[in-house]
Amino acid sequence: MSVSSASDIQEVTDVSAYARRLAASACGASPALASAPGDERDRALASAASQIAAASDAIAEANAADLEAGRAAGLADATLDRLALDEKRIEKLAGAVRDVAAQPDPVGTVLEGRVLANGIRLERVRVPLGTVMVVYESRPNVTADAAALCIKSGNSAILRGGREAFHTNRALAACMAAGLADAGLPEEAVRFVETTDRAAVTELLRMEQHIDLVIPRGGASLIEAVAEQARIPVIKHYAGNCHVYVDADCDDAMAEAICLNAKTQRYGVCNAAETLLFHRSAAERGLLARVAGALAERGVTVRADAGARAHYPAAEPASESDWSEEFLGPVVAIGVCEDLDAAIDHVNRYGSHHTDAIVTEGVTAAERFLNEIDAANVFLNCSTRFSDGGQYGLGAEIGISTDKLHARGPMGAADLTTYKWIARGSGQIRE
Amino acid sequence: MSVSSASDIQEVTDVSAYARRLAASACGASPALASAPGDERDRALASAASQIAAASDAIAEANAADLEAGRAAGLADATLDRLALDEKRIEKLAGAVRDVAAQPDPVGTVLEGRVLANGIRLERVRVPLGTVMVVYESRPNVTADAAALCIKSGNSAILRGGREAFHTNRALAACMAAGLADAGLPEEAVRFVETTDRAAVTELLRMEQHIDLVIPRGGASLIEAVAEQARIPVIKHYAGNCHVYVDADCDDAMAEAICLNAKTQRYGVCNAAETLLFHRSAAERGLLARVAGALAERGVTVRADAGARAHYPAAEPASESDWSEEFLGPVVAIGVCEDLDAAIDHVNRYGSHHTDAIVTEGVTAAERFLNEIDAANVFLNCSTRFSDGGQYGLGAEIGISTDKLHARGPMGAADLTTYKWIARGSGQIRE
Repeated sequence: MSVSSASDIQEVTDVSAYARRLAASACGASPALASAPGDERDRALASAASQIAAASDAIAEANAADLEAGRAAGLADATLDRLALDEKRIEKLAGAVRDVAAQPDPVGTVLEGRVLANGIRLERVRVPLGTVMVVYESRPNVTADAAALCIKSGNSAILRGGREAFHTNRALAACMAAGLADAGLPEEAVRFVETTDRAAVTELLRMEQHIDLVIPRGGASLIEAVAEQARIPVIKHYAGNCHVYVDADCDDAMAEAICLNAKTQRYGVCNAAETLLFHRSAAERGLLARVAGALAERGVTVRADAGARAHYPAAEPASESDWSEEFLGPVVAIGVCEDLDAAIDHVNRYGSHHTDAIVTEGVTAAERFLNEIDAANVFLNCSTRFSDGGQYGLGAEIGISTDKLHARGPMGAADLTTYKWIARGSGQIRE
Repeated sequence: MSVSSASDIQEVTDVSAYARRLAASACGASPALASAPGDERDRALASAASQIAAASDAIAEANAADLEAGRAAGLADATLDRLALDEKRIEKLAGAVRDVAAQPDPVGTVLEGRVLANGIRLERVRVPLGTVMVVYESRPNVTADAAALCIKSGNSAILRGGREAFHTNRALAACMAAGLADAGLPEEAVRFVETTDRAAVTELLRMEQHIDLVIPRGGASLIEAVAEQARIPVIKHYAGNCHVYVDADCDDAMAEAICLNAKTQRYGVCNAAETLLFHRSAAERGLLARVAGALAERGVTVRADAGARAHYPAAEPASESDWSEEFLGPVVAIGVCEDLDAAIDHVNRYGSHHTDAIVTEGVTAAERFLNEIDAANVFLNCSTRFSDGGQYGLGAEIGISTDKLHARGPMGAADLTTYKWIARGSGQIRE
């Protein structure tokens, strides 16, 4: 693999023609992938993983070029850290591709089937979607993960990563394409958008004749831009403004452990808690102050409403916007609710419909919360951090959908499929 | 119920504010509907059916006003016929609502469930989408059907019918809302768009905070306009350009019966065949001529390619556009294919991915066709006319999706749901 430098980002002159060619070639490759047996797709993934491991030095060099350009452009340290790949991270990337190969094949699963009264045998069978486009930001592991999940599910992939990871992403996409070729499958089934011109994305998002789905992963502005421009179907992976509600009647030690885990076990993830709500009586018996104090001890900034500050005066006052915020860091908003209704109202109003938990010993409160909270994931007496495809046993995930159509919550390879109805008759006609 | 006249179509002055109020009220009613037990929703449907039957005269009067306006506006006879309701059709409409009530309740179905290794009980459970908008053209039965399927599946409905059926639709929607009120459910859960101003639809299609899904049903221009404008997810119900491919090795009598049934059993439906393809050897042994002759005898105009005209010279020459046409009437396009590959290519290129059938005795041809045709419904040795929710045992259908996301093919009440992941723990935190 040749070393990439920051200067070789392709300047595509006719973006529209480039986008059309790219989409048409990915779409043209999709029937071959869709009809390939699972072991061929798995062989492509195994080979891609080996190519990533073998190209470790070249990938690291491409990454160094991206990091250098990023530092020159003044990217934040956190962004540079998400972008950086060392040998260990590259190995982990290859391992993730092998893990996808080891998952069960979703293609061909019979979802339901019966014999109709007229003797027709009817089956509803999972088939690939066709071509899936993923638009994402800095983390280069998305290149390998997304391509792997598309290959696993028999789809062509169009990958559009962030400008700051351009060389790294291109090197990884080349390994995935090489894996396909090695298994005798068309390498055009993984296409990396080799220009950072945004007009290319705008063009691609309107190619409904070639692309079946786009998944935007990243910040709110990226997702909104994609949703605004797309003619093709979008499944949005929005922010996680997750809640833990501590009910009046609960195991206080359990509530404390869950609040601390949900907020602090890892900060920069979408299933971390951002707001903790306490029933007034839980606050009054000192539980709010104990949890807030323990969080502050771990370096978390506590912002609280007036009710919560009465019990924990060290908190900063929370502003209205704090309740909608995905802090993705050591900041938490804490509020007091008069009752369960107020808690449910708060979560449904301010939440992002990602993951919300209740800690309670009361069965009525538990069932009401689980039923009435409008979120992809609703939890009783456990940490929001379990909201994850791996934890759920789905294998690797393409992300966590905050949409309601097609897929909601953790989205694995099976969610990159559609189905067809197959009817086998023996001459039946309709009277 | 008061009689409507053509002059009372509301002239809404502030369309934007009207649309916002309408959507917000439907959305506001949706939690009550979502949490109502199935028997309450069924009671609302039973009452709505009775209200339709009881209001038969008023509905017929509203319909007469629409028909009068339609005749004055010079609507085609076929359109007027689709629009017309007599007592028998109104009774049938009420019966269809009762049929929906009798279907199993999709809400609450546990789609999968397991206990994770850490002891968390995880379930994926069907829940209503929230608010569903249906945009449709002349047939007023869609008003009752769509509202019934939304109520059945625990969703609020926003109904926007065609201008030509305005009074009929409004009268029917009022019966559905009255059924809700009668069962103690919020009547705002069925909202009829009481203006024919297109700007109202444009506004509604951007209200992603209030509306979860829009289903356009009608002609291509309606569907394209909705898809173009919508910010909310769309499931398109496009045309059915359905095919029957007659293979070399087939039961000739079966092939003839299926071709005739698929083309002529009913003309104006999306699952009727529009193109018949014959393997060259089936044409050469006289089967093409026999089928074409039988169709012509039933008054069907035959348009054929050069290969087919060699065997049936009475045919008109087919133009390129005939292969893409949904005739919805007594016209058929007939072509000859050199082999199965040519037939598969033709269907995938010109078809609308709705329903395509093969007639064959060869297992290899059968399996290749079923696997390689990219359509919602693929049939072996039976008529395309079986592509239907009722025939499939799904109960009443909201339509036949030609999209791949969320729902493909016949779409019943269950397809108007999403799911949530429910996790029940006992204090689990993530290490």
